[in-house]
Amino acid sequence: MFQNKIPRNNEDDYTLEAAAARREFLKEKTGVALQQVGQFSTDPQAVSGNCENFMGMIQMPVGVAGPVLINGEYAQGEFYVPLATTEGTLIASYSRGMRAITECGGIKTTVAEDIMQRSPGYKFADARQARDFAQWLDDNFAQIKEQADSTTSVGKLIFIQHWSMNRCLYTRFNFTTGDAAGQNMVSKATDRACKWIAKNYPGEILDYTFNSNTETDKKHSQMHMIHTRGKRVIAELVLKKEVMQGLLRTTAQNLMNARNFSNVGAAISVPAYNGPHSANGIASLFIATGQDEANVVESHAGNVYTEALPNGDLYWSVTLPAIIVATFGGGTGLPTQRECLEMMDCYGKGKAKKLAEIVAATVVAGDISISSAAQAGEFVNSHEKYGRNR
Amino acid sequence: MFQNKIPRNNEDDYTLEAAAARREFLKEKTGVALQQVGQFSTDPQAVSGNCENFMGMIQMPVGVAGPVLINGEYAQGEFYVPLATTEGTLIASYSRGMRAITECGGIKTTVAEDIMQRSPGYKFADARQARDFAQWLDDNFAQIKEQADSTTSVGKLIFIQHWSMNRCLYTRFNFTTGDAAGQNMVSKATDRACKWIAKNYPGEILDYTFNSNTETDKKHSQMHMIHTRGKRVIAELVLKKEVMQGLLRTTAQNLMNARNFSNVGAAISVPAYNGPHSANGIASLFIATGQDEANVVESHAGNVYTEALPNGDLYWSVTLPAIIVATFGGGTGLPTQRECLEMMDCYGKGKAKKLAEIVAATVVAGDISISSAAQAGEFVNSHEKYGRNR
Amino acid sequence: MFQNKIPRNNEDDYTLEAAAARREFLKEKTGVALQQVGQFSTDPQAVSGNCENFMGMIQMPVGVAGPVLINGEYAQGEFYVPLATTEGTLIASYSRGMRAITECGGIKTTVAEDIMQRSPGYKFADARQARDFAQWLDDNFAQIKEQADSTTSVGKLIFIQHWSMNRCLYTRFNFTTGDAAGQNMVSKATDRACKWIAKNYPGEILDYTFNSNTETDKKHSQMHMIHTRGKRVIAELVLKKEVMQGLLRTTAQNLMNARNFSNVGAAISVPAYNGPHSANGIASLFIATGQDEANVVESHAGNVYTEALPNGDLYWSVTLPAIIVATFGGGTGLPTQRECLEMMDCYGKGKAKKLAEIVAATVVAGDISISSAAQAGEFVNSHEKYGRNR
Amino acid sequence: MFQNKIPRNNEDDYTLEAAAARREFLKEKTGVALQQVGQFSTDPQAVSGNCENFMGMIQMPVGVAGPVLINGEYAQGEFYVPLATTEGTLIASYSRGMRAITECGGIKTTVAEDIMQRSPGYKFADARQARDFAQWLDDNFAQIKEQADSTTSVGKLIFIQHWSMNRCLYTRFNFTTGDAAGQNMVSKATDRACKWIAKNYPGEILDYTFNSNTETDKKHSQMHMIHTRGKRVIAELVLKKEVMQGLLRTTAQNLMNARNFSNVGAAISVPAYNGPHSANGIASLFIATGQDEANVVESHAGNVYTEALPNGDLYWSVTLPAIIVATFGGGTGLPTQRECLEMMDCYGKGKAKKLAEIVAATVVAGDISISSAAQAGEFVNSHEKYGRNR
Repeated sequence: MFQNKIPRNNEDDYTLEAAAARREFLKEKTGVALQQVGQFSTDPQAVSGNCENFMGMIQMPVGVAGPVLINGEYAQGEFYVPLATTEGTLIASYSRGMRAITECGGIKTTVAEDIMQRSPGYKFADARQARDFAQWLDDNFAQIKEQADSTTSVGKLIFIQHWSMNRCLYTRFNFTTGDAAGQNMVSKATDRACKWIAKNYPGEILDYTFNSNTETDKKHSQMHMIHTRGKRVIAELVLKKEVMQGLLRTTAQNLMNARNFSNVGAAISVPAYNGPHSANGIASLFIATGQDEANVVESHAGNVYTEALPNGDLYWSVTLPAIIVATFGGGTGLPTQRECLEMMDCYGKGKAKKLAEIVAATVVAGDISISSAAQAGEFVNSHEKYGRNR
Repeated sequence: MFQNKIPRNNEDDYTLEAAAARREFLKEKTGVALQQVGQFSTDPQAVSGNCENFMGMIQMPVGVAGPVLINGEYAQGEFYVPLATTEGTLIASYSRGMRAITECGGIKTTVAEDIMQRSPGYKFADARQARDFAQWLDDNFAQIKEQADSTTSVGKLIFIQHWSMNRCLYTRFNFTTGDAAGQNMVSKATDRACKWIAKNYPGEILDYTFNSNTETDKKHSQMHMIHTRGKRVIAELVLKKEVMQGLLRTTAQNLMNARNFSNVGAAISVPAYNGPHSANGIASLFIATGQDEANVVESHAGNVYTEALPNGDLYWSVTLPAIIVATFGGGTGLPTQRECLEMMDCYGKGKAKKLAEIVAATVVAGDISISSAAQAGEFVNSHEKYGRNR
Repeated sequence: MFQNKIPRNNEDDYTLEAAAARREFLKEKTGVALQQVGQFSTDPQAVSGNCENFMGMIQMPVGVAGPVLINGEYAQGEFYVPLATTEGTLIASYSRGMRAITECGGIKTTVAEDIMQRSPGYKFADARQARDFAQWLDDNFAQIKEQADSTTSVGKLIFIQHWSMNRCLYTRFNFTTGDAAGQNMVSKATDRACKWIAKNYPGEILDYTFNSNTETDKKHSQMHMIHTRGKRVIAELVLKKEVMQGLLRTTAQNLMNARNFSNVGAAISVPAYNGPHSANGIASLFIATGQDEANVVESHAGNVYTEALPNGDLYWSVTLPAIIVATFGGGTGLPTQRECLEMMDCYGKGKAKKLAEIVAATVVAGDISISSAAQAGEFVNSHEKYGRNR
Repeated sequence: MFQNKIPRNNEDDYTLEAAAARREFLKEKTGVALQQVGQFSTDPQAVSGNCENFMGMIQMPVGVAGPVLINGEYAQGEFYVPLATTEGTLIASYSRGMRAITECGGIKTTVAEDIMQRSPGYKFADARQARDFAQWLDDNFAQIKEQADSTTSVGKLIFIQHWSMNRCLYTRFNFTTGDAAGQNMVSKATDRACKWIAKNYPGEILDYTFNSNTETDKKHSQMHMIHTRGKRVIAELVLKKEVMQGLLRTTAQNLMNARNFSNVGAAISVPAYNGPHSANGIASLFIATGQDEANVVESHAGNVYTEALPNGDLYWSVTLPAIIVATFGGGTGLPTQRECLEMMDCYGKGKAKKLAEIVAATVVAGDISISSAAQAGEFVNSHEKYGRNR
């Protein structure tokens, strides 16, 4: 059984030949030639850490939005933002929002926290032993940290959260990870710490899991909203009355009405994000810049908060508690992705917070644009104009 | 103000020249040449409905996993699954899971529901008027449906849900949409229906929003888990004792222990998905096949349910309530993406449920593989072997 | 084993003697005489359907708040509201809120829905059989309803919701129940329906549960917020500028600021109620009127929504989706409880919606009072003045 | 306006005469005499800190369940548990569960955490100032604690949590409170701390709220599940095969099937408690012992976790993260309530954790009893036998 194995070249599987052999195999099995998938400029060696059974490249169209004027602590000035998407109107809409932001004098961005987790779980004979283990973790934090930190020059174990549930103790190891997204870094560090714990804890541990589901890697969770995963970024600006009336064809009152509807609707549906559509901009920017494509599910969580000001302006903010981005490693070094990072001067070390600020500014651009369109009755029309019928 | 406008060709903006002009403009503004972004085989005309301010193509590596034996109502037989990713180990892990599924005799997939929504909100002078409007919607459903259905040959308005909140009525218009993901189709249909409502409702509507946040388009929400968005797909199989012990190096008991940890952890963190990592496979398959890249946030929601069987086997299932996929329109027709659909015989009309079944099978493959690895202590090691340090 | 059995009188266990015998027994076992518990005016026969192992009466202090002017569809005019509580300041605060409401011209109350549920669950060989069973339920609704409705002259089965999860079908049978809270009524009706289903369904049901946790009886749940349990009641009023400045010593702006804090805080903590404190008034009114004391956990859920009006007034509303009240049966006929219902003309048939409206008005009274106090810095002081130190 | 004021005796409002005057007033206003409400043995002076506008006593029937054998750290031995209720079958069911527990050799209870909160919120000019304020709170914790702790001999400020949301900082001040429930104690302490902060913080605070809704006093919230409010108590036992087959007429497999249904149902409905019915026992025990009657909404939250053991036994546990109880102050000193505390030796200082353990044991008793009944098909019948039709 299990014949039909996909061909693999044990000497070097990341060559044009190895990719072609797989396409040929698939042609035999499925009758489909994969000709376009086989046309690409990227050197297969470049994807050797990114993609097993490599057979070619998906070409995803990328456009540019902007410029958006950002007054961040890391991102400062006007940015052109690359967005990879197949959804018509998306870039046009984000671009309009960026123009509105820029016309209002820019957007202020702040990274409030920066932290990455793994969450081992431990099972004991009873709840008291679980509680005692929690105390032991607290008492031995320095040594646990020493073990964890020994595995990386960048990551640092900052604190360990823990929860008693039945006879188990659920933990959440919190690290700083520099400019890496850090999931692998904290895996190694936590793994080392857990081995030390297993060896040194005087009590008896009945069972253990490396991931007890309190970190929720690659999954949205309320935990992220509360305790941050990756970067907690806040973007805020005052939308000026003139810009709302001019470019956006709306008013502070109209936008507040839409926000009120949306916020009460959120009490019914309990969405990960109470604003219009964070995921569109984040997914497009993540793909363009070689981020882990699945992290959009965590990063799209957030809270939009607005206030009408007495002069007719509107304070608009977004809090994004789980922006997970990297500026080196992973897919960031692939040729096209790297160029997209470079056009924002976001490639390499020391740039992750800058990129996170740009992500947050992008989210606001998309939200104010679509909110205004919906109020102005343009939503359906603009999709008809730009988008294919789906 | 707002100088530096991105160049646009008003006659035809989807040409190699127009894209090159934008890259040239960006080189001036940012100093970055975007040479790789400019190397692609796709005809720019092909992206005219997908990507404004088009400047080139992101090359995203795509590999293949499988074959996975699926016993669906639409997907039947062995499938090779294209996965676009930059995360090392992902494809290797999904492939191992697919092999486990196939060795167990395949996976059964079922589409339990298929539905797409828009959610207008209405405001009245008081709660009684909102409640009366709800009654009027029920009483006039046939005419509202007639209006909505007149905008599309495919979509059908099936039912309208509504909620009284303060003096507003929140609604959720539910449609079938054939093989399109359907967001735009239901926008048009709902827009038409709302115009008819506005003209014909005898009472006074104080305010209106096209999206009251009970559909949560491009956002995970509990509403999706309860009421489905897109396709509600269930995949289930019996993992055989021998396959667990052999290929997966684990046992039913070990996997149940991991599931128990994970399920109680979910009571703390409230994740969108209680299993290991639906988003990885879904994001990769979505990108490879030209799905809307942001829909992964909705589609990754779900519930894994397992039962240890007396003979040492393990019943494993996943319920995915919001799989949003299309097999024509949007990005599905782009050359590389279309090939990836075709290799699963999933391109064109009549294929959306088949693709949804493949998505669900893929999710299970990833989950059983990573769950086994975590139990067998391989997780960190395999990331070190395949993945770059991040 | 299990000696020390509590004495029971098999002929008639609801007599002064039987109660005294139990107190005597407990005195022997615990050394505590329970003298005060044994002093009561209620006839023990009156509690024969309410309290097994009856040993006496808890005396819970009851005060009165009001009058509150209600402009309901069922409750019309000024009401004095009995509140049983041991929390100092509670009644004073609710009374102040009621005065504010009355000074503003009263509060408008609306019952938007009225419905009670049971939620059987069914397990099948696979997900397809579960889905087919859902279709069968829909197709045979008329007969299922006939069975359910045959058990009660009051309750009517209105519709059945169902959800496919793994290979199970989760259902939620929705009934109207007249003026009873209705949990027992719908139990009997659903039980009868399920027996008919078991006999008549042509497929094979592998397992069955009477309560699959989608009704969440005696538990708060998001399901209640979405789909109502008991009565969905909305109370709304315009707080007048003068009343806010006078009696409440605050302004619309101050109250909006507090609501804004509270609403964003709710995005972090995900409370059952985003307003200040629904549970205080509801618990006190429920105990005073013989409601099921545990139903406060469901009934306290809700959403407060406010809007500052241009003239300095404030629109304030609450939506309470799960007010579960009865005006006959259960504890409502006990002597002191009945008097408390009677003083609001809420005892007996045809009064349940009236009582629900009074509950909602009471909740608003408590919220506007404590919100104003918090803004005016009175909160801690008033607790010091009225409440014991705890 | 606002005539009809409820009479008040400014010299001493807690006398039989003052109460009678109010009943007389209400008789005039409502036509209802309140004769039974006026019959009570409690000295009105005793309620002077509990109930403004005092007019009499609600008589709530109280029965006894047990004995239940508890192997706690504070509660040790057999306990008879007083339950005040008007719901027929409740006490019979809890008593049966207690007998099952005792026949199995008792239940182990553990208090894992003990903590009470207030949650001031602060608003600033922008998010950076909010973040900087968070840092200042951390840096000045010792002085803030000194201020808070100076207001009480019992309470101690342990740590301050904080969250950046838009331009606000949400905080949660965590205290130990000894044997008081502690809400008022922590109000005073936090108020003092906030006054010190207001005076000493060098930056500009734009707005402030005493309760920013991250403590969710008197409201269930996910925050409680994660971070505990009051006492986090775990109760666990091994249900023996013989007891399940004998007294409970069920098996481990049957109970596991019911738990599986319930747990997946919880993924749909998101209840505060995934088990059968914590609120019934908690409400009844709270009322019998003079607890704050509204705290049941917080205390009913929890997680039931079970495991079938190879020998046919069943591990059953409950984790209750927000048990809020007091053994002095509030309503605990009222005559009947005090007797109920005394019969469990739970009155006065040093008894709160003991009472919390009894609460948790009671919850398990109710859950295993009703779960067994539901499996054995007894649920509807027992309600018909014992309960009035509602």
